Amino acid sequence: MATPTSSSSARQACSELAHTLNVDFASRRLAEALDERDPLKPLRSEFLIPPRKSYVPDTSNPDTPSIYLCGNSLGLQPAGLRTLVNEELDAWGALGVQGHFRHPHNRDWVTIDDHVVAESAKIVGADSSEVAIMNSLTANLHFLMVSFYRPTSTRFKILMEAKAFPSDFYAIESQVRFHGYDPADAIIEVAPREGEHILRTEDITDIIARRGDTIALVMFSGIQYYTGQFFELEAITAAAKAKNCVVGFDLAHAVGNVPLSLSAWDVDFACWCTYKYLNAGPGGIGGAYVNKRYANAELPRMSGWWGTDPATKFQMDNIFRPIPGANSFRVSNPNVLATASLLGSLNVFAKTSMNALRTKSQLLTGYLEALLLDLGPNSGFKILTPSDPAQRGCQLSLLFDEGLMMPVFENLERNAVIVDERKPDVIRVAPTPLYNTFVDVWTFVNVLTEAIGVARSAA
Amino acid sequence: MATPTSSSSARQACSELAHTLNVDFASRRLAEALDERDPLKPLRSEFLIPPRKSYVPDTSNPDTPSIYLCGNSLGLQPAGLRTLVNEELDAWGALGVQGHFRHPHNRDWVTIDDHVVAESAKIVGADSSEVAIMNSLTANLHFLMVSFYRPTSTRFKILMEAKAFPSDFYAIESQVRFHGYDPADAIIEVAPREGEHILRTEDITDIIARRGDTIALVMFSGIQYYTGQFFELEAITAAAKAKNCVVGFDLAHAVGNVPLSLSAWDVDFACWCTYKYLNAGPGGIGGAYVNKRYANAELPRMSGWWGTDPATKFQMDNIFRPIPGANSFRVSNPNVLATASLLGSLNVFAKTSMNALRTKSQLLTGYLEALLLDLGPNSGFKILTPSDPAQRGCQLSLLFDEGLMMPVFENLERNAVIVDERKPDVIRVAPTPLYNTFVDVWTFVNVLTEAIGVARSAA
Ligand SMILES: Cc1ncc(COP(=O)(O)O)c(C=O)c1O
Ligand SMILES: Cc1ncc(COP(=O)(O)O)c(C=O)c1O
Repeated sequence: MATPTSSSSARQACSELAHTLNVDFASRRLAEALDERDPLKPLRSEFLIPPRKSYVPDTSNPDTPSIYLCGNSLGLQPAGLRTLVNEELDAWGALGVQGHFRHPHNRDWVTIDDHVVAESAKIVGADSSEVAIMNSLTANLHFLMVSFYRPTSTRFKILMEAKAFPSDFYAIESQVRFHGYDPADAIIEVAPREGEHILRTEDITDIIARRGDTIALVMFSGIQYYTGQFFELEAITAAAKAKNCVVGFDLAHAVGNVPLSLSAWDVDFACWCTYKYLNAGPGGIGGAYVNKRYANAELPRMSGWWGTDPATKFQMDNIFRPIPGANSFRVSNPNVLATASLLGSLNVFAKTSMNALRTKSQLLTGYLEALLLDLGPNSGFKILTPSDPAQRGCQLSLLFDEGLMMPVFENLERNAVIVDERKPDVIRVAPTPLYNTFVDVWTFVNVLTEAIGVARSAA
Repeated sequence: MATPTSSSSARQACSELAHTLNVDFASRRLAEALDERDPLKPLRSEFLIPPRKSYVPDTSNPDTPSIYLCGNSLGLQPAGLRTLVNEELDAWGALGVQGHFRHPHNRDWVTIDDHVVAESAKIVGADSSEVAIMNSLTANLHFLMVSFYRPTSTRFKILMEAKAFPSDFYAIESQVRFHGYDPADAIIEVAPREGEHILRTEDITDIIARRGDTIALVMFSGIQYYTGQFFELEAITAAAKAKNCVVGFDLAHAVGNVPLSLSAWDVDFACWCTYKYLNAGPGGIGGAYVNKRYANAELPRMSGWWGTDPATKFQMDNIFRPIPGANSFRVSNPNVLATASLLGSLNVFAKTSMNALRTKSQLLTGYLEALLLDLGPNSGFKILTPSDPAQRGCQLSLLFDEGLMMPVFENLERNAVIVDERKPDVIRVAPTPLYNTFVDVWTFVNVLTEAIGVARSAA
């Protein structure tokens, strides 16, 4: 099957297969055939798929896998992760402090994060020296803004998307206040045009072109958590650079979801969490990228011992000698269980590539979109997410007609179909290429259709 | 046995027992008798004590417990912790995202840190509302200094101990620079007097009295990591308050080691790690205390969504409504495995009290000190740590004659006696009352004596 490069090309690829097999586009048989032809199919067995009984107490098929389409919120557990976590408990139990430098599995705790840097760097399109695994997402936003938001009296503004994820807004606002500026003055929010849900890249780059001289930092998410829009990070970066603005991205919903090329795009900094598409578990350890241009730069920062040259860490001369690269931003020794969890997850990513995942993802989400669109104009919802596959990841956000969303959501759950709701009216559906199947998508659409019917007749 | 209130009272209590039993003070029999009479003895079985074979490959007693005296660096693993960690993996595997609000063990992830706050608060002598479990130690130092180091043109200095733990120095120095001050000017370090190792409280309070008007923040460790000195936090706090200085403490080596009364002392803020005496595992989640006086104060801070009123978290009105109390300082959702680990550890603390632990600790460390002192003036080392039990926790720091330390340290290790070295000449020994025995201490002293003999004859 060819890589779909537009919405219609996923539909077309699926259509062609339906035609070849002589089955209906909307048939389960097509979904099954798509799964049979999926080169990434074996990866699903690397994950623990919650069984139906977890959500539906009196189900007749208790051990059948549920339809889990919620990797945008919390990714599923890689099956190999438990062993790695327990190996760390074993090492601690057996060795105590010596686990730091004499680890039975060669994951000495003093350098355990080294084992998760290279694969993380591959996933975000960066050199290993540009990536540090540390802290949590919002903490990393702060530590990086301390270094990269350097307002001056003429250039102190931050450009961001309107309706950003709340934590990002709070983080940005508090940074602005910390420097003594008024958020109302210092924060420029770009909103979609009247009646639209999606930001136009030209509207972003246009503001940068017009007001860039006053903008210290352009700070966007990679993928908008609510709409699923994948911002054109390369174009935003280029526009920001042209006006000498620093540019940083929150990749919470982008990492492990879409291919990224942070180095090639020349992004200044970025950070992410690992509990969504990276499947490292609830509250997973965070990630940070800092462009290698800054590897030896004297940046203002909030420092800690884990960022200084380890050889002189206890020289007690009070001289902070930043490790060249992103690791200089680490402040503390990392949590070992959280790092082992991430390793368990990245071991699965190492079996494929972001490009292979993207190919499947575009087909899978395109198939979902086609099935949803085929429900017709009176389906009860519309899709907020861009129809251009290049402008989205795996998630589609469905905006329901008033009053429909909650009953539909609850009905889905009663059928062990797990998606994510944003009150008042949105359901987010995220078929992830690592563990979701075309049959998952097909089942979702069928249960959804029924749920909408039930909700409407009850209304 | 009475609580020893001075060095000599521990010796005296042990002496009396030796006399009653008609055994030598230096005999193993006395150590055994002290263990038999130890009311906290059953707690040792709550821990995984590394076996000799972990350190000595060809030992004849491979499964005999080693002598682990290194809780000052990494505490041992509570036996019940593994179950809790694996329960979280089970919950994640079974439920995916629904673990956040429908947890099989009633530890919903959205509020999982609630389960570790009350016991943490008890351990540091605070109200639950004054404690947040979050991030890591150095990160917390930064987040708290952002709020509590508020320099002005006349009052911008930070008073700290000379030779503080490197991370604390880096953190403080970088905060000072962030505000545009020169560390050489803004940091006042208090050092021991010429020829002394221990800071005199009067020297600290004296500087505060004389220079307090220029001091924005008094920032000390609770127990000095190198010397083991337990600073007189109450007196330091009182002196700082008298001059309207903000006062904060890094409790890395104090928490779970000595009783603390942060609220009663009226300390402004504090933070700690949980991997030393709190036994929560390598890189364990950090803790923070913020005096309840600030519960509803409008503080400058670096904010995140986990610090805002959860009820309005997704109201998308961009208004940060700080949760009253320390939880307003949380920026991110917490790591679940790290939080479960800490819970596994605090479950053991819940079986005793800091006062009971302190009583045993003073006897255990006093016994260690007495045995060491009895080696005489030509022992090859001297004890850096204060002899006054009120001025130390469980740790004793031994400063060896030149060239002795490394061979002694290596010999100890070959005998499965695990302590901690600080080059060039110091060994730190930390008998912890939760899991160490009097026989551990006795064995250490005997192996040490032999090791010193061997090192000397090889020299
Ligand atoms: C006194 C003190 N401060 C700070 C730290 C740094 O801890 P972390 O790496 O958890 O930030 C330590 C670690 O041992 C410490 O002992
Ligand atoms: C876009 C975005 N930013 C920030 C956060 C906050 O994450 P954390 O709690 O890990 O700091 C999230 C969490 O879902 C997010 O989706």
